[in-house]
Amino acid sequence: MKILIIGGVAAGTKVAAKLKRENRDYDVTILTKSKDISYAGCGLPYYVGNVIEQREQLIVNTPASFSALTGATVLTETEVIKINRDQKTVEAKSLTTNELSTYSYDKLVIASGASPIKPAIEGVNLDGVYYMRTPEDAIGLREAVEAGKMKRAVVVGGGFIGLEVAENLSIQGVRVSVLDMADHILPGFDPEFADYVENHLADHVIMAMTNTRLEAILGDGKVEKVQTEKRAIKCDAVILAMGIRANTSFAVDTGLELMKNQTIKVNEYLMTNDPDIYAVGDCACVSNALTKESAWSPMGSSANIEGRIVARNIAGGSISYRGVLGTGVCKLPELNVGRTGLTEKAAMESGYDAVSVVTVVDDKAHYYPQASYFIVKMVADRATKKLLGLQVLGKGNVDKMIDIAVTALTMKATLEDIVDMDLAYAPPFSTAIHPLSHTVNILLNKISGAFNSMTPADYMADKAEGYQLIDASLNPSITGAPHLDLTKVTGKVADYALDDKLLLVCSKGKRAYLLQNRLKHFGYTNTLVLEGGSIFNSI
Amino acid sequence: MKILIIGGVAAGTKVAAKLKRENRDYDVTILTKSKDISYAGCGLPYYVGNVIEQREQLIVNTPASFSALTGATVLTETEVIKINRDQKTVEAKSLTTNELSTYSYDKLVIASGASPIKPAIEGVNLDGVYYMRTPEDAIGLREAVEAGKMKRAVVVGGGFIGLEVAENLSIQGVRVSVLDMADHILPGFDPEFADYVENHLADHVIMAMTNTRLEAILGDGKVEKVQTEKRAIKCDAVILAMGIRANTSFAVDTGLELMKNQTIKVNEYLMTNDPDIYAVGDCACVSNALTKESAWSPMGSSANIEGRIVARNIAGGSISYRGVLGTGVCKLPELNVGRTGLTEKAAMESGYDAVSVVTVVDDKAHYYPQASYFIVKMVADRATKKLLGLQVLGKGNVDKMIDIAVTALTMKATLEDIVDMDLAYAPPFSTAIHPLSHTVNILLNKISGAFNSMTPADYMADKAEGYQLIDASLNPSITGAPHLDLTKVTGKVADYALDDKLLLVCSKGKRAYLLQNRLKHFGYTNTLVLEGGSIFNSI
Repeated sequence: MKILIIGGVAAGTKVAAKLKRENRDYDVTILTKSKDISYAGCGLPYYVGNVIEQREQLIVNTPASFSALTGATVLTETEVIKINRDQKTVEAKSLTTNELSTYSYDKLVIASGASPIKPAIEGVNLDGVYYMRTPEDAIGLREAVEAGKMKRAVVVGGGFIGLEVAENLSIQGVRVSVLDMADHILPGFDPEFADYVENHLADHVIMAMTNTRLEAILGDGKVEKVQTEKRAIKCDAVILAMGIRANTSFAVDTGLELMKNQTIKVNEYLMTNDPDIYAVGDCACVSNALTKESAWSPMGSSANIEGRIVARNIAGGSISYRGVLGTGVCKLPELNVGRTGLTEKAAMESGYDAVSVVTVVDDKAHYYPQASYFIVKMVADRATKKLLGLQVLGKGNVDKMIDIAVTALTMKATLEDIVDMDLAYAPPFSTAIHPLSHTVNILLNKISGAFNSMTPADYMADKAEGYQLIDASLNPSITGAPHLDLTKVTGKVADYALDDKLLLVCSKGKRAYLLQNRLKHFGYTNTLVLEGGSIFNSI
Repeated sequence: MKILIIGGVAAGTKVAAKLKRENRDYDVTILTKSKDISYAGCGLPYYVGNVIEQREQLIVNTPASFSALTGATVLTETEVIKINRDQKTVEAKSLTTNELSTYSYDKLVIASGASPIKPAIEGVNLDGVYYMRTPEDAIGLREAVEAGKMKRAVVVGGGFIGLEVAENLSIQGVRVSVLDMADHILPGFDPEFADYVENHLADHVIMAMTNTRLEAILGDGKVEKVQTEKRAIKCDAVILAMGIRANTSFAVDTGLELMKNQTIKVNEYLMTNDPDIYAVGDCACVSNALTKESAWSPMGSSANIEGRIVARNIAGGSISYRGVLGTGVCKLPELNVGRTGLTEKAAMESGYDAVSVVTVVDDKAHYYPQASYFIVKMVADRATKKLLGLQVLGKGNVDKMIDIAVTALTMKATLEDIVDMDLAYAPPFSTAIHPLSHTVNILLNKISGAFNSMTPADYMADKAEGYQLIDASLNPSITGAPHLDLTKVTGKVADYALDDKLLLVCSKGKRAYLLQNRLKHFGYTNTLVLEGGSIFNSI
């Protein structure tokens, strides 16, 4: 069997290697535009920051070493320009000789990836404009940094890649601003979480400007300023991380079904509408494992999983792919951020009666060195109590929280399924009541009505109007708010009527909850706890 | 309703606090022998190592602060000596006045915990003999360490507590040996994993002696030596961490059903055979969530979960506890160890057709600083492919691997359920193919026959006799073994007949697997890959 693979980074090389292991007699050829294959795309920002020191570390395999290891043929600098489905051939152009060649296939795998979006604006070709997609991009940017002339940089795009580049430039001593045309950075997070991260970044001298569209890049030969609707910002470099677009121009007009964003639609077997053509990785549109709706989640991890499944299916298997959860994790300066499943907004858009809670929970025993906290937002379906999504911020291992949630989401767990799990505990690793269990308990209490709260989103939207803020902290700590020590509450409190609207706030939320519990016992009917407390909310 | 709780550490305080939140009108009283309540039992070894600096950090709540916070009554230094089930009363003795008092209950919760085993041997009362159960134990041991006269210590017992104390004494500059009468340290791990840890500890100058029974402690007034069957060992201190025994003497002859080890048997609602008496925490025998057999897993985390459930059940709920998985995690010098579910041995004893694999898998992107590897043993049921257990060793976050497995085990997942999960990936956190997924893939390949291997346990048991060891590493690295470069294998290899018995070894196992794949293609029928490679096995 003759298998052609278009593309040779994560998905393409995975398909090729696995196919040859399935059956070494398969004739497997990778056609790729670039000189490199199999590079560490996700590591590029860390090369910029000199966290990864050597450029060789970015290359997983050369074409030669990959061929030797797997037995697959690799044709680099070979750009596919056309697919002839009737003849089962592709036409490709050599980028060195410009010669055209035709390659035939029994099965074709499209793993052509994606390219960074290049906006059609003035100055986009100036010296000092960078992307972050290939090793050359990272090498070029670090060279410029290390040449010592880059004082200020503007990163355009506040997604994971943009923020990773921002952190790494910042590590190198460059002053960084991040522009995003959306109303918040971190797509895939709910706005109040993105807002917290924006404030956190500002504390680390990375200024994020949202609702800010890049209009032009100005300069005489090289970058001097970026122009936005609001103002011009001086800078020596611009890094465009505005997203990516699938490399599928050769698939247009082939009859292959494309999505609006030009990704290739595949079914659960990762097969296109042509049974001899599969698509995997960043160029493919798969489905969301929860909603079964179409989902594009271009990640190196998914590319590997998909590549392995396609190879097995070509080799006679019928492995179905359950789809993505949109899982992601990202390291920022002294804050890690992770997410999986649906945000509250996405859950509501998908028709769920979504209920969420924001908690601030210890990440390890409070007395253990480096103990910190996680800020968690958990989303579930109110009626079925099915877990729908998790967002976590924290100095510690947010990836652990996310991976537990991924497993639970994959198994379609309800909150009750996962509330009393025997999760790992010892003081260097976690808390006696695991931060995930803690959050599940609180959300279940909220659903049952044992816990009455106001979400940070509602608080930001001024829904606390008419409520009196009460400081429920151990020691008074909220300026301007009367302090109420829960241990002194033994009946009706002189200062407050039983139907007063009281918003109870402490640092993390626990003492406010205990206070609410007492007040309710003594007849108070209108108390709310502010979720996330003063740590998360701007109070 | 009047509720008495015997015991005031993790489980007892949790029951009391939650009961008062469920209904503040409940009359809740804790009776406890000790002066303290609610102390950080799991943190004690870290106080010894000065990792936790202040003794105040060990105390979560004083009796007074706990009462103020919760509304429960706490009677300290009050030892329960008898339960009168007919009258629904308990008799207790004041340890300060020796007075006897009788307390009545509507519901009784036994949370009396456990005490360290004190062997009936010569010298057990000498100065310099320590336990690790109460704050006083840890404070006393650290004082002795800091007095500067402790050069050598012997820890008796190679479970988590013993090893944590050993690490922390070692941090303080004390030379530590660990004695264990079992044939390996780390109960709950399979022997080959314990063996690896013993070697690792030896590299860190903590010598573990297994199959070694403590016969006497020798000294004139204070500890000078421990005597074993084999030899006497000089030391200045002995820490007895030989396990714990439930504090249930007051429950004998009450008609409450006790297990052989004197723990109190409870049903899924954590109720004893008396519907008005519950038992939780270290004194209770619950069930294993997988096998449903009786299980004793005395951990602070389970104590909290159980305490919460009992409080809700007393308050009218009917929450059933699914039981424990025997999850545990422990920090050792430059190695963390974790486990959950069944070991291979336990799985076979429970009647499963257990299949396992040992893998060595990167814990984060190999090019990222501090990248290391996990050594993983995964156990599953061969026919159903149900996950049964996981053991993980590594410098990194083994707790993440364990918690994913806990979630999967709780949801009764099969390997196929969890193989293609969208787990979190970015270079600082994980690998593009998650180490858990990687291990699942390898175990599935082993079950399907695509991967033929010898386990480290079989290799240690000399089952490689008759096999020729082949070095499959990238560069020759195994002394005395012929090297075979898989990229050069393009047909039958001159040196080996097609039916030669070949044991393929590389550092982690991956290249050996690739080599096997090629050799099989070219007609070799008797190759095995040594699981865990040269990193795990002593080669």
